Amino acid sequence: MTPIIARFLSNFIFLFHKKGNQTKCLPYLYPPHPLNFFTHKTPSIRSIDLHLSTTMASSTTPLLKDELDIVIPTIRNLDFLEMWRPFFQPYHLIIVQDGDPSKIIKVPEGFDYELYNRNDINRILGPKSSCISFKDSACRCFGYMVSKKKYIFTIDDDCFVAKDPSGNDINALEQHIKNLLSPSTPFFFNTLYDPYREGADFVRGYPFSLREGVSTAVSHGLWLNIPDYDAPTQLVKPRERNTRFVDAVMTIPKGTLFPMCGMNLAFDRELIGPAMYFGLMGDGQPIGRYDDMWAGWCIKVICDHLGLGVKTGLPYIWHSKASNPFVNLKKEYKGIYWQEELIPFFQGATLPKECTTVQSCYKELSKQVKAKLGKIDDYFNKLADAMVTWIEAWDELNPSAEITNGK
Amino acid sequence: MTPIIARFLSNFIFLFHKKGNQTKCLPYLYPPHPLNFFTHKTPSIRSIDLHLSTTMASSTTPLLKDELDIVIPTIRNLDFLEMWRPFFQPYHLIIVQDGDPSKIIKVPEGFDYELYNRNDINRILGPKSSCISFKDSACRCFGYMVSKKKYIFTIDDDCFVAKDPSGNDINALEQHIKNLLSPSTPFFFNTLYDPYREGADFVRGYPFSLREGVSTAVSHGLWLNIPDYDAPTQLVKPRERNTRFVDAVMTIPKGTLFPMCGMNLAFDRELIGPAMYFGLMGDGQPIGRYDDMWAGWCIKVICDHLGLGVKTGLPYIWHSKASNPFVNLKKEYKGIYWQEELIPFFQGATLPKECTTVQSCYKELSKQVKAKLGKIDDYFNKLADAMVTWIEAWDELNPSAEITNGK
Repeated sequence: MTPIIARFLSNFIFLFHKKGNQTKCLPYLYPPHPLNFFTHKTPSIRSIDLHLSTTMASSTTPLLKDELDIVIPTIRNLDFLEMWRPFFQPYHLIIVQDGDPSKIIKVPEGFDYELYNRNDINRILGPKSSCISFKDSACRCFGYMVSKKKYIFTIDDDCFVAKDPSGNDINALEQHIKNLLSPSTPFFFNTLYDPYREGADFVRGYPFSLREGVSTAVSHGLWLNIPDYDAPTQLVKPRERNTRFVDAVMTIPKGTLFPMCGMNLAFDRELIGPAMYFGLMGDGQPIGRYDDMWAGWCIKVICDHLGLGVKTGLPYIWHSKASNPFVNLKKEYKGIYWQEELIPFFQGATLPKECTTVQSCYKELSKQVKAKLGKIDDYFNKLADAMVTWIEAWDELNPSAEITNGK
Repeated sequence: MTPIIARFLSNFIFLFHKKGNQTKCLPYLYPPHPLNFFTHKTPSIRSIDLHLSTTMASSTTPLLKDELDIVIPTIRNLDFLEMWRPFFQPYHLIIVQDGDPSKIIKVPEGFDYELYNRNDINRILGPKSSCISFKDSACRCFGYMVSKKKYIFTIDDDCFVAKDPSGNDINALEQHIKNLLSPSTPFFFNTLYDPYREGADFVRGYPFSLREGVSTAVSHGLWLNIPDYDAPTQLVKPRERNTRFVDAVMTIPKGTLFPMCGMNLAFDRELIGPAMYFGLMGDGQPIGRYDDMWAGWCIKVICDHLGLGVKTGLPYIWHSKASNPFVNLKKEYKGIYWQEELIPFFQGATLPKECTTVQSCYKELSKQVKAKLGKIDDYFNKLADAMVTWIEAWDELNPSAEITNGK
């Protein structure tokens, strides 16, 4: 036996890491690289886990009650909140009213909320309000900007409480919080899905140095009933409903892009907020229904660069109503065409090492958008400018975040 | 409207592609890149799909009855086959007897099989038999080599029929065949999992040019009851059982490695067979229990290079018995240590364009193993040599395959 192996075995003491009623097997004094065996650094237990166990200790206190805002874009009365009352009422809502600002949006009694219409957006942002879309649910990102909380959950007003296979109501928000407060594993695939879930772990062959995971920035939830299809698929399969409940949460691997849907989405504002820009869509713009896709491609490239995780899977919501496929086709058709060039662009995008904050990453990405996508259509030059305006507006409304990020 | 957009819309006719009782939305005359709009190539409907619909037309004929071998490594009587009789009996079995060749292995009546013990392996391969492991389930790969079929399913003899959440027996083999006969999508993540499954499709934002997918080379199934944990995790969580049935199949994205378990695995021999080498393990070797992991890393790098797909998820089998964690720790400990260098090696491995066959990819990989891993331990020099011997033996037993691959 070589001395290095002997050393390895003597170091092979495991930390019995208690998480709820679950013991996680994490290597204690196990260094990330075998050549580091002689540097005895005790790994710190993730503060995020301590947070999780502390916060989850009392089931009566809603998780992250004072650290999360729920952002809802809407053009109608928010009757859908009635069904969500047991889960949402303890939280603060930010309602972004789209369309006619003179219309009165009724919010069911008992909810704590602030509401912004177009006049408010124009007043608060001044000329910078040009970066916020109008007559498109992309306007929701204004809510991300004005929030002062660490976490955001955003949901569409045609989304209702889904039931799990046992018939129980799914608390979508609670599941998103669990996703955000437990680490992600973007560097290696775990075949039993989220290794941090109760009853699961890392399987044989999963490198021990990667078992600490990385912070989770985004939690992408799914939809039962009406699936999130594009207009062509809606036209071809008008009666298709999603009835399959897949009981899994997983990390989307580093280097892999995904179609992020904004219908049922949560994220850590401090980690990724400034990149959660939903672009220029709707009124006066050549496309719609690509707001969340654009944000998803941008955040994924930046999360990969900064070593942050993106999870998808649970929770499900019940998506009640399919939008009109003919209207959608009109909104989408340029996007369907353009995305064939956008995907290779984002797949090939790399950010320089110097970009260490979300803001600097995002500004760099806007430059690359202008340089490489501007030739497809002048729209991308405008979008690149709007990306910069968005960051300026974000930093104006979030001056402390600017300092936190070391700028 | 620009002429190119007008052209696009006129081309936007969809092929109503019938698959069983399911209609798939595939773009007809939709080229992979928008700049190719003027080259009107009609995409051929995948022969693989025609095969699928033809083969599945009659539910009384077992799928791929004459095109698939079941490979089972064992040291004991194969009583476990009784439970699998309804599903396996129509197929041919290749049994690879490990350990004492004088021992008689009893196979339940009515199964069609051939059996190879160590004496047979030595006789058939001569000096090249050195590449086949002894006293380790890695010996199973000899069965892959002697098979003359297009598909292989391999299963351990402590794996039984699992039940789905409705209490029905799961026909694991049928699900593997479905996985192998439908395409994979390694270039972009689909949030509703396998888009080719009934009741699912590609979601909004999924590029149309990628919806044809690529051929699936490997189908990796999972395990209910005893999860496939390494020795340290077994020691820490002796009572953990996998009870979560995740109703999903998904493609492991390009560029992402995974821990491939050989317990419940199927693959297309013609597409990836020569890379399915389970390495040097067990008797006379410094490690064990890394046979399938090694094969998994190699096949993933080669599938990524050749544009082939790897799926994981369904089907589940019921894994009955946890192996001894103390024995496992002894087998694994060098692997646990070495894998911290192996993973970065495989993550960084690239193959030259000239490598267009699995054999040439595998030989190139063996060179890189020798050059880059030989310094960790002399074992990797031996392993690299065994990889070459394996390919030589494969080509000797499969001369037609050599021609098929254009060598």
